[in-house]
Amino acid sequence: MDPREVSLLDPVSAGGAAARATGDTAFVQAMLDVESAWAGVLSDAGLIEPAAAEAVAEAADARRYDLASLTARTRDGANALIPLLADLRSTTHEVALAAGADRAGASAAAAAVHRGATSQDIIDTALMLVARRAGAALTADLASAADSLAGLVDAHRGTLAVARSLTQHALPTTFGLRAAGWLSGVVTAADRIRGALDAAPLQWGGAAGTAAALTDVVAGSSATPAGLAASLADRLRLADPGAPWHTQRLPVTSLGAALADVVVAASKVANDVLLGARPEVGELREAASQGRGGSSAMPQKQNPVLAVTIKQAAIAAPAQLGQLYAAAAAAGDERPDGGWHAEWAALRALIRTAGAAAEQLAALTAGLEVDKQRMRANLELSGGLVLSERIMARLAAHARHGDLRGKEAVTALVRAAQTSGASLRELLRAGIDPAVVSDAELDTLLDPDDYLGATDAFIDTHLATYRKLHPDD
Amino acid sequence: MDPREVSLLDPVSAGGAAARATGDTAFVQAMLDVESAWAGVLSDAGLIEPAAAEAVAEAADARRYDLASLTARTRDGANALIPLLADLRSTTHEVALAAGADRAGASAAAAAVHRGATSQDIIDTALMLVARRAGAALTADLASAADSLAGLVDAHRGTLAVARSLTQHALPTTFGLRAAGWLSGVVTAADRIRGALDAAPLQWGGAAGTAAALTDVVAGSSATPAGLAASLADRLRLADPGAPWHTQRLPVTSLGAALADVVVAASKVANDVLLGARPEVGELREAASQGRGGSSAMPQKQNPVLAVTIKQAAIAAPAQLGQLYAAAAAAGDERPDGGWHAEWAALRALIRTAGAAAEQLAALTAGLEVDKQRMRANLELSGGLVLSERIMARLAAHARHGDLRGKEAVTALVRAAQTSGASLRELLRAGIDPAVVSDAELDTLLDPDDYLGATDAFIDTHLATYRKLHPDD
Amino acid sequence: MDPREVSLLDPVSAGGAAARATGDTAFVQAMLDVESAWAGVLSDAGLIEPAAAEAVAEAADARRYDLASLTARTRDGANALIPLLADLRSTTHEVALAAGADRAGASAAAAAVHRGATSQDIIDTALMLVARRAGAALTADLASAADSLAGLVDAHRGTLAVARSLTQHALPTTFGLRAAGWLSGVVTAADRIRGALDAAPLQWGGAAGTAAALTDVVAGSSATPAGLAASLADRLRLADPGAPWHTQRLPVTSLGAALADVVVAASKVANDVLLGARPEVGELREAASQGRGGSSAMPQKQNPVLAVTIKQAAIAAPAQLGQLYAAAAAAGDERPDGGWHAEWAALRALIRTAGAAAEQLAALTAGLEVDKQRMRANLELSGGLVLSERIMARLAAHARHGDLRGKEAVTALVRAAQTSGASLRELLRAGIDPAVVSDAELDTLLDPDDYLGATDAFIDTHLATYRKLHPDD
Amino acid sequence: MDPREVSLLDPVSAGGAAARATGDTAFVQAMLDVESAWAGVLSDAGLIEPAAAEAVAEAADARRYDLASLTARTRDGANALIPLLADLRSTTHEVALAAGADRAGASAAAAAVHRGATSQDIIDTALMLVARRAGAALTADLASAADSLAGLVDAHRGTLAVARSLTQHALPTTFGLRAAGWLSGVVTAADRIRGALDAAPLQWGGAAGTAAALTDVVAGSSATPAGLAASLADRLRLADPGAPWHTQRLPVTSLGAALADVVVAASKVANDVLLGARPEVGELREAASQGRGGSSAMPQKQNPVLAVTIKQAAIAAPAQLGQLYAAAAAAGDERPDGGWHAEWAALRALIRTAGAAAEQLAALTAGLEVDKQRMRANLELSGGLVLSERIMARLAAHARHGDLRGKEAVTALVRAAQTSGASLRELLRAGIDPAVVSDAELDTLLDPDDYLGATDAFIDTHLATYRKLHPDD
Repeated sequence: MDPREVSLLDPVSAGGAAARATGDTAFVQAMLDVESAWAGVLSDAGLIEPAAAEAVAEAADARRYDLASLTARTRDGANALIPLLADLRSTTHEVALAAGADRAGASAAAAAVHRGATSQDIIDTALMLVARRAGAALTADLASAADSLAGLVDAHRGTLAVARSLTQHALPTTFGLRAAGWLSGVVTAADRIRGALDAAPLQWGGAAGTAAALTDVVAGSSATPAGLAASLADRLRLADPGAPWHTQRLPVTSLGAALADVVVAASKVANDVLLGARPEVGELREAASQGRGGSSAMPQKQNPVLAVTIKQAAIAAPAQLGQLYAAAAAAGDERPDGGWHAEWAALRALIRTAGAAAEQLAALTAGLEVDKQRMRANLELSGGLVLSERIMARLAAHARHGDLRGKEAVTALVRAAQTSGASLRELLRAGIDPAVVSDAELDTLLDPDDYLGATDAFIDTHLATYRKLHPDD
Repeated sequence: MDPREVSLLDPVSAGGAAARATGDTAFVQAMLDVESAWAGVLSDAGLIEPAAAEAVAEAADARRYDLASLTARTRDGANALIPLLADLRSTTHEVALAAGADRAGASAAAAAVHRGATSQDIIDTALMLVARRAGAALTADLASAADSLAGLVDAHRGTLAVARSLTQHALPTTFGLRAAGWLSGVVTAADRIRGALDAAPLQWGGAAGTAAALTDVVAGSSATPAGLAASLADRLRLADPGAPWHTQRLPVTSLGAALADVVVAASKVANDVLLGARPEVGELREAASQGRGGSSAMPQKQNPVLAVTIKQAAIAAPAQLGQLYAAAAAAGDERPDGGWHAEWAALRALIRTAGAAAEQLAALTAGLEVDKQRMRANLELSGGLVLSERIMARLAAHARHGDLRGKEAVTALVRAAQTSGASLRELLRAGIDPAVVSDAELDTLLDPDDYLGATDAFIDTHLATYRKLHPDD
Repeated sequence: MDPREVSLLDPVSAGGAAARATGDTAFVQAMLDVESAWAGVLSDAGLIEPAAAEAVAEAADARRYDLASLTARTRDGANALIPLLADLRSTTHEVALAAGADRAGASAAAAAVHRGATSQDIIDTALMLVARRAGAALTADLASAADSLAGLVDAHRGTLAVARSLTQHALPTTFGLRAAGWLSGVVTAADRIRGALDAAPLQWGGAAGTAAALTDVVAGSSATPAGLAASLADRLRLADPGAPWHTQRLPVTSLGAALADVVVAASKVANDVLLGARPEVGELREAASQGRGGSSAMPQKQNPVLAVTIKQAAIAAPAQLGQLYAAAAAAGDERPDGGWHAEWAALRALIRTAGAAAEQLAALTAGLEVDKQRMRANLELSGGLVLSERIMARLAAHARHGDLRGKEAVTALVRAAQTSGASLRELLRAGIDPAVVSDAELDTLLDPDDYLGATDAFIDTHLATYRKLHPDD
Repeated sequence: MDPREVSLLDPVSAGGAAARATGDTAFVQAMLDVESAWAGVLSDAGLIEPAAAEAVAEAADARRYDLASLTARTRDGANALIPLLADLRSTTHEVALAAGADRAGASAAAAAVHRGATSQDIIDTALMLVARRAGAALTADLASAADSLAGLVDAHRGTLAVARSLTQHALPTTFGLRAAGWLSGVVTAADRIRGALDAAPLQWGGAAGTAAALTDVVAGSSATPAGLAASLADRLRLADPGAPWHTQRLPVTSLGAALADVVVAASKVANDVLLGARPEVGELREAASQGRGGSSAMPQKQNPVLAVTIKQAAIAAPAQLGQLYAAAAAAGDERPDGGWHAEWAALRALIRTAGAAAEQLAALTAGLEVDKQRMRANLELSGGLVLSERIMARLAAHARHGDLRGKEAVTALVRAAQTSGASLRELLRAGIDPAVVSDAELDTLLDPDDYLGATDAFIDTHLATYRKLHPDD
């Protein structure tokens, strides 16, 4: 763990893989990787000496650079590549000398760095690399969460639970269907983020998106700017967009939206776990883990910190996405005067937040403990009132209560059960002729297991989508 | 224009098609259309009488309902479908009687309304219908804007202009490439919003997403909840998701992100037009139109109101998208306790904002006036300094200035030209041996037309994407 | 209820006073009121004829104007005052003629309208009027909520309840203290919004904030632009800022922040009620009200719709505030090119959201039902574990459990109670020498009523602040 | 510069004082300061040994702690105080031993740490300390900016410039008035942030806001929880709120809003500078500074990076504020389950963004170069058309153009001047009888210096407010 990547005020990401993958060190390494790959492309095309490319490659190691110094010099040009480039050139010079080059050769190697490129090319492309690298862990975490959820769905296909709407008990459902809904969200979000990461493009266009300097560089050779850019994209395993997108920021917004979607999918799970983990509900519990969720002063506490930190992410991500879009919408000219600069921190924050939420979700779903008894007990809390929809639909024609008939009678019976605490079944029995509706029929109508509708079919639909998108599992 | 849809504080949409398509009347009509289509599906399946479906269809006309009364009753249940459903049932009853039904038939028709459905099914689906309907105009406007932009690209492929970065003159470019960048953004955004609209799904799952009531409705028939939902999606021309998504709001967020992308694409055009229309720049002008852009007190004013209102949209859309994601991330239970409710206004606002931005963009691009002379004059404002990148790359080896050599010499010459106002060409000529760089070579190096790089190739790339995605044009 | 003000997709405000007070009709009336007051000021100063001012006053009635037509003409100038001004002039002309003026007099009356003013003066000032008017109801609702809450605090000062942190049971508290916290938030928010409303300023500066036209108008009279503006502020009961603030939008942001604070204060109450109203918790219930909170299909449902809609507001307000600040931060020039326009809808939305949240909060707090037995039962759910903090602090020195001593022993005992379900008291008794801690002492340490700390003192602090800020109550 | 505080993707703050003052090291030091001050308070009250307090004070030095290790342990409890507290206790133990304490004394010293407190007390209070400390630099920067702006106002009270609205030339104004508007915004924002910082409160309430543990701690002494909290506030120079505000987050939102106001005020300056610095406008220039604003590839570039980075802040701050409010509105229970956690990073980001914007603003205003000639030239670009408002008001009665009379004639003359390029003065002269309006009168009406309205009076108002709020200057 690099001490430079700490983030004590962002508990969802603190100490995790997403924080590391998006730290300043990772960003510097990504910028160096772009410069190095570009030198390789130029060398392959015969436009610089192979030895120069080799020197750049060796110099392109973030551990060689002083982050504090880079930071101190970043503000002056409003971007970090400018000071890094100066240092990289100087390091390349040293490396070349150390490798046996003469002074001219070393100078040539230093001069070969960044040829025909602009700082925006490097920064935009490096951010895409950061996204791709952090994205690998993120998608693995989502796949792991999906597998865990599919397991929960299988295990709890028939586990009765109460469905809640606007906080109140509504109908019977199964925990399997609730978990299948979670799975559906995770699978959809995973599909989107994979698509967005696969489409993450190289940005390459020079100082104003005309590739003018690069055109001069290739003059007289068989190379073309577009061809070299394609080779660079290939080396970096980024998509080749065919033209610069320096002021059309839609590649960034689509990545951002997919990242925020990951947080949305995780949030649904977390919100339900935060409720289920309350002592009064008691249906769900995060796995106990040494050190996690404890309180220094209150030994009885076992806080659902995985869900708590996902909820933290859920509150942060919409604002981060809003900032990303605001930055994109502020683009003007051939390089924006602030809009571009406001995008970086927002994109990094989204990658970090989504990655961290996926990490926590994987842990949460892997260890989630389900209390079937409490689910059943909660379902039965209202003594059959969660079947009222069915009672209304099926018994209204036969019900009476005092002078009331039909729906009014059913409503009155339900209200009487609620306020008096009397058994709904008994009230119904008293209000409906047994010759019309037998005791057995009444029992069936009040059996939650008999009113699960298409629960199984919907579970199958969600599982089928999961299997289609995760063929290996 | 329906007086109920006014929006005097939202000038981008005021009086436009997007405002109409997203007004309360349109939303009520969409809810009625869902109810009517559902009655049709039930009738086709033999689950209700054809006469009942016909009565519902006739009753499903927004003009029959009192919006003020609906509004007054909306708060009590926190949704508008509850009062509308009551009114629709009563209207269906009247319509059935008027059509010759007897009392029992009319009651049956009224009772057939909304069978097996829940208010969330109707509201979510109606909002998707609203999006699809507003989306038709939106995509037509984007297509129109793309056509206009393609025309501008063709007309100005060779129109020299100055490329600006961080507000300063950077390099030569062409207005054709700038417009091709605009086109690229519009084409990408159009592709995304079409995809999102095509995928806009039906929501159908009953009170808790189990289709329990509907399962009772189809009991004994050959129909299934899934089959009926598929038929309903077909009637409404929405996608059939195969299962409810009532608490997994990713279909809504992807629509929202695509709508915000439309605004981002339009914003880049507007930002550039707002600069170009300034008197000191003078490169672009919105088409004069009777009444548009005038000032009551200052007769000389011709405000670029199309671009101004698009910029209004650009400031609003990120916040609206943020609200949409915040609402989605607040989902819990089988129907959220506020998250769902906060989503509606945000989604409507985004549809309206994006639709209005597209309307304005179509008008803006159709009539944009381009002043090639001013573009050229602005490019030449700095007397060759925009070629400094090239001078540095090509002449550093040969330049001297006082004691300085190489890059330092070029930089000093450039600074001398900037501060003294002296001609850069003359300073360079004085600092470089004519035997090494001839006058003709120097002229070429200082000719902006000779330093356009891959401008043409990038334009071709953008046009090719446009043609691929707009094959009819 | 004006049919034009409907808002079916915004349930928190639908049909309420805040929606009416912020509708287009209210905004048009506010613009007319500004124009009319200004004519009065000019007349008082002898700068226009009294008859002209009278004609303007009579014409300044929103019912005379066609909102649909105004809307249709708003987009062209990107503001609603331009078409309204045209209509107001024509109506003033008619009114003057009808009042007996001759043609010249009527023309003079029409020409007197808006003299020396600009559309921004009218719109900015009208929005401040709208805020002030909606604010009167809002502050009354907050005062009513504060009174209700103070009553709850008094009634439940000693009502034991469990304090929850990160969803888990933490310590004993009282419902009185929880309600005192709510009160504290409401009182603070009320104080801020009153301050912001009192400071809501007139905007008056002419087309570019120089009062140039107005200076011409007063030339030769004893009037000054500043003096007339002060008179206008006085007539409209707005603050007189002494200079225009047309491009310094801090008066708007401070109003917006105070409005959002109202929503934050209401949200804390709503969040706690949404939990307390869950059947598994059962501590709180919204007052039953005819028609409110019901479900068409599920007769047993009593949804806490007041809290649900406040939560809707809680999700919406941060985004609305973000838009307001984004608009303010986009201000440039002497009238911004979109930033100004994006502010209106955001400000209106915030006024509406905060006003509606206050309405719902007043209703919620007026009727909130408290179940003391359930509060006590929930506190006792964990059988003394909520006293663990105290046990740890007071008994660690004496505790042992197997080989463990001190804090480790207490922790082990607590865990044993949690996992085995055994009584914490019995486990502690077994682990602590009765000669050191007597049974009576142990009972006291496990009595939640004995571990309420400064609950009473904190309640007194909150009540004192309430009384200071609500001296009339 | 501490390498841990780097922020390469946030150029506005990179390497600056605001970044340092809000880094993890600063936050850790603030938490340690709170713990140390609290030990001092307890010692003063005779509740712990003075030697223990001395040991805590010595241990409370951030350099003693390993940030990487703290970070790695933060996630488990979702807050950084838990691991820090463990380390602080152990360090206190070591320090006490080193100071000569025996084992029991060292253990007592370790045990004295954090007595009666909870992690929320420390984190909330530490964040307020961070705000206060960063705020000192921020307010000094704003005061410096205000002084510079007051100087600009004095120097340019009579410097003619064109006022622009919706990007177009509107009227004459002075640069002095524009700068006075900037000053007004800065002074207002400075006043608000000073007020918010002065009101920044201590948070002290124990695990559930009841001060239960602390009540046990003081039992038998003359101390009270409230009295100790007041002493602690005094030591930390924070406001004493009299009661905990752990779940009523309005102290945080008001701080956040004031911070965002600072960014809004700075943004207006930056937006105007970004326009004025464009080569086509040329009215303003940021002071050249070694290394600042340069481009590696384009030696002619002098980017206005101070304004660019302020604009970056302007895009970021609204989203950060939105997140802060969203977190505040998510508060529930006695400690929120994610809302609290989402607030920290948002508050830190706002402090950092506002502080950095103030730093950049101070530098920007200190060195801003004003080109009076270009201002005059731009004013005259339209040849008198910016006097159209006055022409319309003063000459409409006498004008004719072809068959047109009155306002129509003036409008037609203005349009003719615009489209033909003919002189407005000549056209007016031809259309107005010299016997009615003399040449001299016409010249006066077309003299921008004669149409400055109340410019001077408004400048005086803004300067007076500045002097009142900055009495030392």
